[in-house]
Amino acid sequence: MTNTIKLCEINGKVYAKIIDQRFLPHQLLYKELHTTSDVILAIKDMWVRGAPLIGVTAAFGMYLAVQEALQTDDAEKHVEYLASQLIETRPTAVNLKWAVEQQLKTFFQYKTEPARQILEAKNLFEKILADDIEQTYWIGVHGLALLKEIHNKNPYKPIQILTHCNAGWLACVKWGTATSPIYQAHEAGIPVHVWVDETRPRNQGANLTAWELKEAGVPCTIIVDNMGGQLMQEGKIDVCIVGADRISIKGHVANKIGTYLKALAAQDNQIPFWVAAPSSTIDFDKEENMPIEVRDDKEVHYMEGLDEQTNTVQKIKITPAGTFALNYAFDITPARLINYIITERGVCRASLEGIQEKFSDKFAQ
Amino acid sequence: MTNTIKLCEINGKVYAKIIDQRFLPHQLLYKELHTTSDVILAIKDMWVRGAPLIGVTAAFGMYLAVQEALQTDDAEKHVEYLASQLIETRPTAVNLKWAVEQQLKTFFQYKTEPARQILEAKNLFEKILADDIEQTYWIGVHGLALLKEIHNKNPYKPIQILTHCNAGWLACVKWGTATSPIYQAHEAGIPVHVWVDETRPRNQGANLTAWELKEAGVPCTIIVDNMGGQLMQEGKIDVCIVGADRISIKGHVANKIGTYLKALAAQDNQIPFWVAAPSSTIDFDKEENMPIEVRDDKEVHYMEGLDEQTNTVQKIKITPAGTFALNYAFDITPARLINYIITERGVCRASLEGIQEKFSDKFAQ
Repeated sequence: MTNTIKLCEINGKVYAKIIDQRFLPHQLLYKELHTTSDVILAIKDMWVRGAPLIGVTAAFGMYLAVQEALQTDDAEKHVEYLASQLIETRPTAVNLKWAVEQQLKTFFQYKTEPARQILEAKNLFEKILADDIEQTYWIGVHGLALLKEIHNKNPYKPIQILTHCNAGWLACVKWGTATSPIYQAHEAGIPVHVWVDETRPRNQGANLTAWELKEAGVPCTIIVDNMGGQLMQEGKIDVCIVGADRISIKGHVANKIGTYLKALAAQDNQIPFWVAAPSSTIDFDKEENMPIEVRDDKEVHYMEGLDEQTNTVQKIKITPAGTFALNYAFDITPARLINYIITERGVCRASLEGIQEKFSDKFAQ
Repeated sequence: MTNTIKLCEINGKVYAKIIDQRFLPHQLLYKELHTTSDVILAIKDMWVRGAPLIGVTAAFGMYLAVQEALQTDDAEKHVEYLASQLIETRPTAVNLKWAVEQQLKTFFQYKTEPARQILEAKNLFEKILADDIEQTYWIGVHGLALLKEIHNKNPYKPIQILTHCNAGWLACVKWGTATSPIYQAHEAGIPVHVWVDETRPRNQGANLTAWELKEAGVPCTIIVDNMGGQLMQEGKIDVCIVGADRISIKGHVANKIGTYLKALAAQDNQIPFWVAAPSSTIDFDKEENMPIEVRDDKEVHYMEGLDEQTNTVQKIKITPAGTFALNYAFDITPARLINYIITERGVCRASLEGIQEKFSDKFAQ
């Protein structure tokens, strides 16, 4: 797998090279981001997506913004303006806001030293990028240890893994979260096969997870979201690994809609169900407040795909005229259905006690 | 709702008028079936679908076949040829084979009386059609009694019903199976609202169930298959009603893929889960043999819908090039997850004892 964002330089000018994810899986196109405006457009129009990758890309945007601002008469005003533009692209993205604010803080910290401002902006971007790679790497290391236990019980058979949505390297810089243990097992020569939930309505499983696993040479099969339960009843799944959008301190997990149904089926068939996520996903402040985002019902009514006649991406309407649809983005999987939460710090039980034990420092604050 | 098949006559010649379901939900087109060849094409190319409707349509095809055969030199040979052609259209459809064989038996019973052969073929077709309407009507009556219990607990709030796939009047002649109690409640003035599972990969829920409910004026909302679990956790579903493709004598139910996941969620949230099906769906011969049909993976890779630019139905590819998919048509919902089986004879528990009590005559055979 390649990195989803790369720092490049030409004639002393820096730019970033990214995958334009709008065209996946039907076309792999790279784009170059040379100005803050480029970065704003890339985030806003979802050339990049996935909370970690959005944060890293925004940090790069601020590195460009600092350089652009320093060429104006009022650098401070200009950098603040560009920062606000970046934050407005995806107003609910926590990582984005955090990354931009970190960059702003650094900028004002060195306000009389322009060269230092540029250098520190670069350093901060590179640190945020490196941290993401390191976190997802360690999630993989800890998850791999668990996968090895399954492998050792039956070393001559591929481990059959079910995953939902895309918690892969396309959402991060490298490795991904749910996919990191899978990639590391594959690299370690442990045979794996992944059942990829299509993940309606946006089909991130079929569009992104299946694509990135195929690119990495990991055997996988796409299934509709309805099918995982029957596969589990037939003994064809050894473990489920999913990502998380938010984890409560009691271990309840908000993740892509449909996760809860797979966790129920896993429990009914005594199959381990793991959640892999960086510890920044754990909400240490609140106990039970897990709001469910309701998205545009157009995502249910319409579907995009490749028209093989014209080799172009087309949008079709797949519901009857005059019908209504409701579109929840996430569901809540209760902690009782989750065996382990895999973070960069290690593995813990999905319970208040399990999380407290691993993150006592966060509770002490 | 209209009948899905109607007997018509013009200048002494009979024909049937059907809905060409291939164009639903985007266009409501009727077709006339004047010859056995028309009927063969209509079944083969899925202008009609749903086991009960296929059976009734085939019975009509045999009524035409008898008339056509009697105009040839060797009526017996010709009617047998047409019968075999009809059976070959959908080789696994049990109702189709049964209806054609009943017609053949009647034909040979009156082999020296051509006028009687035609009359009895007509009578048999009309009986099979009337039986289907009557069975689904009684399923509705018994299901309605159960719905009234829910309604009486909270008469000022619509009953929130979740259904999966299409077990509606489009699959039968009238009423449908899972939808029959819903239509009868609606007609009785009991407020209902139906959550319609999209039902990937063939989207029979979005394409057919939502369309027919809308036509009948029953309030409904389409949801992706991933969403029902979260709605149940939020207390937004009072009861699930689904159809069945086969019911074992122990009460296990083979139905459209994804049914099992909804039954698990219903149990987890103490929501009643009902299966509505005619008693012909119960397999009294075998105990546990419920084979799962694997269908063409193209159903997962491709999606059909309306191109709103051209107002034509288009097919698009929705998975990455070079990826694999697996496509089970059905899953098994264990009897322990089902509260009631609703048949034309009444309601029984989903267990060997429950089925034995209601169908002791079938066990005595």
